[in-house]
Amino acid sequence: MKPSLAKGTRDFTAQEVSRRKYIINILQNNFELFGFQPLETPSFENLSTLTGKYGEEGDRLIFKILNSGDFLKDNISKKKKEYYKKLEDNRFEFISFCELTVSSERSYEKKAKSIAKFIDHFHYSTNKIDRKLIKLFVYEVCLENKVLIKTKDYEKLLEEIKISFQLIFDIPADTNFQKLTSQISDKALRYDLTVPFARFVAMNHGKLTFPFKRFQIQPVWRADRPQKGRYREFYQCDADVVGSESLLQEVDLVQLYLKSFSDLKVPVTIHMNNRKILSGLAEYAGITNKLIDFTVALDKLDKIGKDGVVKELLEREISQESIDKLDFLFEQSDDALENLLQLKEKFVGNEIGLQGVEELEFVLTQSLNLGVDMQNLVFNITLARGLDYYTGAIFEVKADEVAMGSIGGGGRYDNLTEVFGVKNIPGIGISFGLDRIYLVMEELNLFPEEATSKTEYLFANFGGEETTEALRLIMQLRGKGVSAELYPESAKINKQFTYAEKKGIKNLVFLGEEEIKNGTVTFKNLEAGEQKTVSLEEFLG
Amino acid sequence: MKPSLAKGTRDFTAQEVSRRKYIINILQNNFELFGFQPLETPSFENLSTLTGKYGEEGDRLIFKILNSGDFLKDNISKKKKEYYKKLEDNRFEFISFCELTVSSERSYEKKAKSIAKFIDHFHYSTNKIDRKLIKLFVYEVCLENKVLIKTKDYEKLLEEIKISFQLIFDIPADTNFQKLTSQISDKALRYDLTVPFARFVAMNHGKLTFPFKRFQIQPVWRADRPQKGRYREFYQCDADVVGSESLLQEVDLVQLYLKSFSDLKVPVTIHMNNRKILSGLAEYAGITNKLIDFTVALDKLDKIGKDGVVKELLEREISQESIDKLDFLFEQSDDALENLLQLKEKFVGNEIGLQGVEELEFVLTQSLNLGVDMQNLVFNITLARGLDYYTGAIFEVKADEVAMGSIGGGGRYDNLTEVFGVKNIPGIGISFGLDRIYLVMEELNLFPEEATSKTEYLFANFGGEETTEALRLIMQLRGKGVSAELYPESAKINKQFTYAEKKGIKNLVFLGEEEIKNGTVTFKNLEAGEQKTVSLEEFLG
Repeated sequence: MKPSLAKGTRDFTAQEVSRRKYIINILQNNFELFGFQPLETPSFENLSTLTGKYGEEGDRLIFKILNSGDFLKDNISKKKKEYYKKLEDNRFEFISFCELTVSSERSYEKKAKSIAKFIDHFHYSTNKIDRKLIKLFVYEVCLENKVLIKTKDYEKLLEEIKISFQLIFDIPADTNFQKLTSQISDKALRYDLTVPFARFVAMNHGKLTFPFKRFQIQPVWRADRPQKGRYREFYQCDADVVGSESLLQEVDLVQLYLKSFSDLKVPVTIHMNNRKILSGLAEYAGITNKLIDFTVALDKLDKIGKDGVVKELLEREISQESIDKLDFLFEQSDDALENLLQLKEKFVGNEIGLQGVEELEFVLTQSLNLGVDMQNLVFNITLARGLDYYTGAIFEVKADEVAMGSIGGGGRYDNLTEVFGVKNIPGIGISFGLDRIYLVMEELNLFPEEATSKTEYLFANFGGEETTEALRLIMQLRGKGVSAELYPESAKINKQFTYAEKKGIKNLVFLGEEEIKNGTVTFKNLEAGEQKTVSLEEFLG
Repeated sequence: MKPSLAKGTRDFTAQEVSRRKYIINILQNNFELFGFQPLETPSFENLSTLTGKYGEEGDRLIFKILNSGDFLKDNISKKKKEYYKKLEDNRFEFISFCELTVSSERSYEKKAKSIAKFIDHFHYSTNKIDRKLIKLFVYEVCLENKVLIKTKDYEKLLEEIKISFQLIFDIPADTNFQKLTSQISDKALRYDLTVPFARFVAMNHGKLTFPFKRFQIQPVWRADRPQKGRYREFYQCDADVVGSESLLQEVDLVQLYLKSFSDLKVPVTIHMNNRKILSGLAEYAGITNKLIDFTVALDKLDKIGKDGVVKELLEREISQESIDKLDFLFEQSDDALENLLQLKEKFVGNEIGLQGVEELEFVLTQSLNLGVDMQNLVFNITLARGLDYYTGAIFEVKADEVAMGSIGGGGRYDNLTEVFGVKNIPGIGISFGLDRIYLVMEELNLFPEEATSKTEYLFANFGGEETTEALRLIMQLRGKGVSAELYPESAKINKQFTYAEKKGIKNLVFLGEEEIKNGTVTFKNLEAGEQKTVSLEEFLG
């Protein structure tokens, strides 16, 4: 067979793994500097933990895992147990016959013939369940013996087997659609890191110290249609604080974003808004009942422009009058504090709106105090983000120099764990988009040379005693933390040279008879092309 | 709902994640020192890539993933398409009626009634396929409307829907068992790292530089019955060299094992054997045709003792005469080279046996030359290892001070990629058992304090201006790579203290009015219990 990758998946070779690790290490380091502790959850969860948390579309994109091993077989053996029980009760002869047929040492053909007779014998049994179980049993025997499909003589038996297939899959009278699905699958691959985190907190909330700050860097899986830059397996890197409503968390997470991207040398702008401001705007325009329609349309401003947003608002049955009241949204100044001032005037008596403004003002002011440049932290009143569960601050990070959509995002939520029956655990979280950050850094050429680990020394293999000496020296180098390897065969030096070059090894070492005698080492730097001979002591530093 | 973990899975909390990373980092560092390059493959592969590679038992333990999203629904819409095509051809009225029924604004009850009538109308259609498709369509409508199951009036319709279920699941005449499984699942979770590696090499062999040395540290999944210490998700850490038959690879991998475990401070013994020696023994005892029976029984010596092995050999129809010839196996000396000498005498004219002895002798001698202690590298003639594909050297690593079974293993194989149609890629690989190494290290108390990352400073929160000053100082600390966080609320100091203690934070910092005025910082080391006040400069080091 010609092998291929599963649709929407990727292999990561040495350079990619190293570069991804370079990013991950910087993120992890920052998470820890900020007092977040690592958590890892299993790749799969009970299906019931995941379904119903991501909306209808999300549920459809969850990868479900077939029940252990081979569900068809499992199914059969369960029924077989039932069957044996039945037979034990009142049909001793029957089971004896089956056992004998299966365990006998005769040829498959003979077995099959016996079974065929056996079926004929019971085919007209009045007890439907018995007939069904017999066929299941027969089917299993046939499958084990892997013979019947090929033998022309047993067409009739084959027919019977096909019927038994139908019987295996028939639907009991009290089954509904959901039940059926859970019969074949009761677990699924992680779709994001938030729901497993919520499941963890709900299960362990008695043992945790709140506020609980965790970070999590793990792959997630989505059955999306694969596209350029969109994969079915990708990493998420999340940091969340739960159990604290303090706005200092918002301030801290802005710092976390800025410091992490600064360490990665990726220039970014953080866009910030507050769900309460959006609610305030809806109230101000008299469209409180249309809040979601309003935010969904507004969120598209970047893509479809003012005219597009207005058109969509109208389509969503928001009146021209309301839209006129909101016209100032499209004319925001560059000065965040000035915009907030303008909002304050409009929000007189609008409690939720004012609260949103104050929250945002606090985060902005504190950040300014800490020396954040307002170029890098902007108030974007049209930012809404799709996820319904955000209730306060919302963030989105964009790379300044590469058009790439958001490379990070997050926000505050009121209840992480309510869906699992544990109330009053509010929190805030942010996420880093590893794949997109990778692409931005690649485009801006930001990966340092050292991000890709390369072997320092390849020892040429001359065979015999020289090889043993080379191995000794290699051992010493490795002991000092210097990577080194021996070419495994005493092949032509050109071949060894090509290997070193293709693998990006930095130096080719020659340890020949002469060198061993003199206690020296000769090595050639393959980048500079220089060759020199030094004493063993000098070489080992 | 009360949440729970899926069977056989685990959450890893901060300490566990950190300790696992401690092990992984040491392994990774050593892999790179030895010239291995990282590879990561996707979590799931095409089912056909995995099945048939692990034997019947293995195939059963592969976790299969249901085809994207909801396979039942996908199935339906495919058939629906077919249905529409059919209708377009020759039944305009029919489709119009359906469309009208679904899209009409009337209540669900009315829709359902229309559909019920509609079914009655077509129920006795002579064309079986049409009847089936109608029912599929009806089913979909009902499902979308989520109404019928509850309404008593539509019992008859419900019956119809149940029949349609059977029709959805019926098996076309030309379907066989395998085909059926692939209809619902065509991909599966990685079962080990070797087969995906082979798939990668087979796909990319034209581009790779041989010998190709890769390491891979990723989770694998097996639908094993969960037990103490056995999980359904666990990490494998593999290093393989392919494209080289040089025995220097064996020597190097022994070094890799010894250096890695030495860095981890885990005392180990490497057990070594060679499949060719086992073949030689079978030839010597005249049981070449019973090689597998022989090795399987011999491999159990540790568990069942000599008597057990002899009993099993007899059960596997190996004659007493042959067993007598092999009796010396149970009387091996502690001196590996002496045992090899003894074998050489017995293997006169036994080509395969002699080759095995010479190979093992080479690896032992070279290792001795490199200073390996023979206490740590033993020739264990009864070591067989289960995997059939090993053809030369085989290894197994055991912890000296903890009874734990093997914590590593591997061997040489003739053909990594033949199963994927690419020939002549021999290789050798070893594996580290992360979970068991973890348990050994825990038992021997080998994790250093630093393996668990802990926050260095918690700043007490006094509110107001002090908070802003604290944030500034925290920023400076983080900039210097020192982890620090602010307690998010100006809560009672006792509460803040408890938080620091429970989270294992090393120091609690007080930056009050007094300190700010004096340019000092007061902090208490929570381990030592000492409190001191130092100047800001001194504090920032």
